[in-house]
Amino acid sequence: MKFSETLIPTLREVPADAVIASHRLMFRAGMLRKLANGLFAYLPLGLRVFRKVEQIIREEMDAVGCLEIKPAVVTPGELWKESGRWETMGESMLRVKNRTGADFVVSPTDEEAVTSIIRDELSSYKQLPLSVYQINTKYRDEIRPRYGVMRAREFTMKDAYSYHRDEDSLDNVYQAMGAAYRRIFKRCGLTVIPVRADSGAMGGSNSEEFMVESEIGDNTLLLCKTCDYAANVEKAGCQPDTPQNSGAQAVKMEKISTPQTKTIAELCEYLKTNAHSFIKALVYRAVNVERDLTGAPGCAGLKRRRLAPGTPEVYDEAFFLVCIRGDLDVNEVKLAAVLKAGDVRLASDADVERITGAPVGFAGPVGLSTVPVIADPTTAAMTDAITGALEADFHYTHVAVGRDWKPWLTADVRTVKAGDLCPVCGGELYEKKGNELGHIFKLGYKYTKAMNVRYLDENGVSQTPIMGTYGIGVDRTLASIIEKYHDDAGIMLPMSVAPFHIVIIPIKYEGKVNAAVDFIATELKKQNIEFLIDDRDERPGVKFNDADLIGIPLRMVVSEKNLPRVEMKLRSEKDVFLVEVLEAVEKITAIVKDKVEKYC
Amino acid sequence: MKFSETLIPTLREVPADAVIASHRLMFRAGMLRKLANGLFAYLPLGLRVFRKVEQIIREEMDAVGCLEIKPAVVTPGELWKESGRWETMGESMLRVKNRTGADFVVSPTDEEAVTSIIRDELSSYKQLPLSVYQINTKYRDEIRPRYGVMRAREFTMKDAYSYHRDEDSLDNVYQAMGAAYRRIFKRCGLTVIPVRADSGAMGGSNSEEFMVESEIGDNTLLLCKTCDYAANVEKAGCQPDTPQNSGAQAVKMEKISTPQTKTIAELCEYLKTNAHSFIKALVYRAVNVERDLTGAPGCAGLKRRRLAPGTPEVYDEAFFLVCIRGDLDVNEVKLAAVLKAGDVRLASDADVERITGAPVGFAGPVGLSTVPVIADPTTAAMTDAITGALEADFHYTHVAVGRDWKPWLTADVRTVKAGDLCPVCGGELYEKKGNELGHIFKLGYKYTKAMNVRYLDENGVSQTPIMGTYGIGVDRTLASIIEKYHDDAGIMLPMSVAPFHIVIIPIKYEGKVNAAVDFIATELKKQNIEFLIDDRDERPGVKFNDADLIGIPLRMVVSEKNLPRVEMKLRSEKDVFLVEVLEAVEKITAIVKDKVEKYC
Repeated sequence: MKFSETLIPTLREVPADAVIASHRLMFRAGMLRKLANGLFAYLPLGLRVFRKVEQIIREEMDAVGCLEIKPAVVTPGELWKESGRWETMGESMLRVKNRTGADFVVSPTDEEAVTSIIRDELSSYKQLPLSVYQINTKYRDEIRPRYGVMRAREFTMKDAYSYHRDEDSLDNVYQAMGAAYRRIFKRCGLTVIPVRADSGAMGGSNSEEFMVESEIGDNTLLLCKTCDYAANVEKAGCQPDTPQNSGAQAVKMEKISTPQTKTIAELCEYLKTNAHSFIKALVYRAVNVERDLTGAPGCAGLKRRRLAPGTPEVYDEAFFLVCIRGDLDVNEVKLAAVLKAGDVRLASDADVERITGAPVGFAGPVGLSTVPVIADPTTAAMTDAITGALEADFHYTHVAVGRDWKPWLTADVRTVKAGDLCPVCGGELYEKKGNELGHIFKLGYKYTKAMNVRYLDENGVSQTPIMGTYGIGVDRTLASIIEKYHDDAGIMLPMSVAPFHIVIIPIKYEGKVNAAVDFIATELKKQNIEFLIDDRDERPGVKFNDADLIGIPLRMVVSEKNLPRVEMKLRSEKDVFLVEVLEAVEKITAIVKDKVEKYC
Repeated sequence: MKFSETLIPTLREVPADAVIASHRLMFRAGMLRKLANGLFAYLPLGLRVFRKVEQIIREEMDAVGCLEIKPAVVTPGELWKESGRWETMGESMLRVKNRTGADFVVSPTDEEAVTSIIRDELSSYKQLPLSVYQINTKYRDEIRPRYGVMRAREFTMKDAYSYHRDEDSLDNVYQAMGAAYRRIFKRCGLTVIPVRADSGAMGGSNSEEFMVESEIGDNTLLLCKTCDYAANVEKAGCQPDTPQNSGAQAVKMEKISTPQTKTIAELCEYLKTNAHSFIKALVYRAVNVERDLTGAPGCAGLKRRRLAPGTPEVYDEAFFLVCIRGDLDVNEVKLAAVLKAGDVRLASDADVERITGAPVGFAGPVGLSTVPVIADPTTAAMTDAITGALEADFHYTHVAVGRDWKPWLTADVRTVKAGDLCPVCGGELYEKKGNELGHIFKLGYKYTKAMNVRYLDENGVSQTPIMGTYGIGVDRTLASIIEKYHDDAGIMLPMSVAPFHIVIIPIKYEGKVNAAVDFIATELKKQNIEFLIDDRDERPGVKFNDADLIGIPLRMVVSEKNLPRVEMKLRSEKDVFLVEVLEAVEKITAIVKDKVEKYC
């Protein structure tokens, strides 16, 4: 392809909102343009890279026997009502009413539509396991789209769904998908950190996120300095640290006056102690709580309902007192998982006063009967703690669990931090920011039960299949490749995803130079080597700069001066080398083949 | 690929709403499933065919230098407001408000988004001509989606847009696109009828539609028995037939009583004459009228406004009396084109009474001054006509144009019918129903002016480029192929778009048969021949039926009985033939190559 015959509008300037390298460079290299906030158009060069990434994903999905299908982008609202997500997905789901008033969704993910197809086709256990995928347009109405295609509103996702007779079969496909994901990212030249993670709006457990390290990452990761433990902070665990406050029961609990000391820092100062001595007690409001609260304090009057037929009953709203050691923070994602709640947030000041009978700052588990008390294990062993006395300006000291208060439930709701101890090996944990590129996830029966998917087993008994889901963001993977592979001069793509394998720059595209370029081009075509000839009437410096900017891994300069030799250079290296015209194609083919195989 | 490892859920039954062959067979062959009314999912087999069609289109677009890009499916409403189509596109455009209240459109077509990209990139005449295309999801909120993917709500369209310095350049690309379209349809095995057609919501002139004949076609085509004239009825012309009612002026106009005779049929009966003698006069209401009505009767008070900045001024609403010979019908699409109106419809009874001063049935051009009179050429020469007298139960006879009335405008608004005479050669026209698969169209300056696209010419003068647009419906092309290529047993696809080139049916997949099949499969893979092995544990009859149903062009049966020979059969022919195993791959490769090259 000739430069003059394509559209590669390289830029010196970049848009003001392009703060990360991939966003900046995709604009400068003429790969991408903006249609609106969070909506982009790939230009020809960007689309070539996009298609390469897409094709790598497709090949690896096909290799594990996953079948490509193509559902619609716009899906019927009815399906989302069946699964219950019409109510739970929130505002990030783009809903639309058509001319007849029917509800539709511009799909952010496709569990419902795919499961509805499988529901109709599935009849016998012989059809299982069954895995299908699509690579298709998705939409999430991000409040703050930014970083170019890294966090756009419209994006392309490879989403796969698998259906199984049992957990063993699900685990087999889950492991195969994990391996396929590792190959996909390796072929894209990316190093991913596989982390166990909470699964957000998907529900369920047993999942793995594939993260790339990124300063602007959405996710905080906890990594172990000793072993390969890696977890999203939303789900990270840690070993219990040596308790400072347990053992023999303390002396009798005492109520003390703590005027105008509401924060733990103030109390530490006032009582000459440290945060480890405190039970921090926080009132949380949870919505759509699936966990059974029968018999829990203050829950007798709560009403349950189903968000959709076939889905479990949930409590619309429930309040909880959550206790954690004073130096620690509650992890709301863990808390939501413990409660199987749609959402949990700190209760309003008014709710705190109603529930604790005291202003904010004096909550504590002692004597509280209005809501269930959830204790993080760090408090469930404290035998000489300080906590709020449910009365303004008063705290209790020498509080002992078991004697002075009892948790309704003990559960890990602790936010793990750098310096905490690895739950696997006890090594020290450290933090990194990461962006999620992929996610594999054992969904369980959530959708197949809600949507009443059935098959007959070998005994003719009707059964519900178990399900897995597996996603990769195509655009985000592309952007992450550029985040990793660039320098001050521009993009430097791995051969496997390069828009062209080689750029050919003729110094004056005429006479002998023209003949040499045309000869090489003809031969390269036979070898399926993708080349771009910069035939523009521009100064060599401009062409060299653009070649560096757009990230093609190999560069060839054809000049009368060097003929019958041509000058070659790898984008990733400084040195140039000369090759005979007649040997150039063989050399190029060897380099391309080697680099594609080695993913570099 | 093995049948047991894919998902090809063939059916004996078909959904009740599948009334055409392609819809029925795509369901029965397990190619397609329905998500909701007008929304479909391609299953693996259907997707393979879809990708083949898509790839043929892509190759031919690339071959004419059109550049593939990938804009968003969801486009900002702002762009549609710029072009004015936010107001004119009507309810078939799916509009959506996001969480911030901003307007978006799930694109039905993409002139605005693509032009907005080009606007930003275009600076110099040196960049022109520039042609870009996408193959992407589109949405039209059809009131009555039906016939499967032939008329779905969501569909995939290849849409291309070209930008030019002048009409010559536009014409070059327009012709090249027309040639590419002919190649695309030929490679898909389709015979298309290229027809000149009105361009509907696109606006502008000079367009060509590529139609396939279809009983359930949306379009009525007029074709000439003698020459190759073909036109959509919406735009078809014809030669004037020998006038029966012109020449010497009639005797003096006379007002006659015609009690309770409102229709032309009743009047013919009452006056003992035929419909040719009448001037049929109809009141039309037009909206968004661009044609200048300055000085036209009754139009002095009409207000003009712009639908969007940069677009021409239009009249919100205007009424017209349209006169045509009594035996003919008014073509509303032609009328809208004459008026450059967004829409024209017959006026309401109340408007007719207000404008003509008489109930419906007595309108006529004589003495009418409330609205402009538009005369079809068939009436503009009538010198002894009958028409309504603008008074209940009265008509005029012996009406002569020029003497008794004068048209404000004479324009062809006649609906051409079978039996009318070809405007090119005078031959007899006949009718066919057709479905539009593609459309190429010289758009002119409509979008580039409205959206203020500019470039500098060689003299440094700012200019507006002229634009063309070129669409193909991918799904509809696929469905049309199946409409053409099927028999009672199922689909019989051309090799160029077949999901697999050959289906291999082992009779007992074990022992020698297994070895032979595996040998052939290995060799076929080396030749890039796509094969499906029906390894299912089913009776041969079931496999034969499914093979016929899913439309694979070649079938091979491997049985112990025939080894070392295998039985082969073309789907399109009755006879089987035997081939040595060792020669089978060569034979298959030759057949596939031959058929792909010959598009059969």
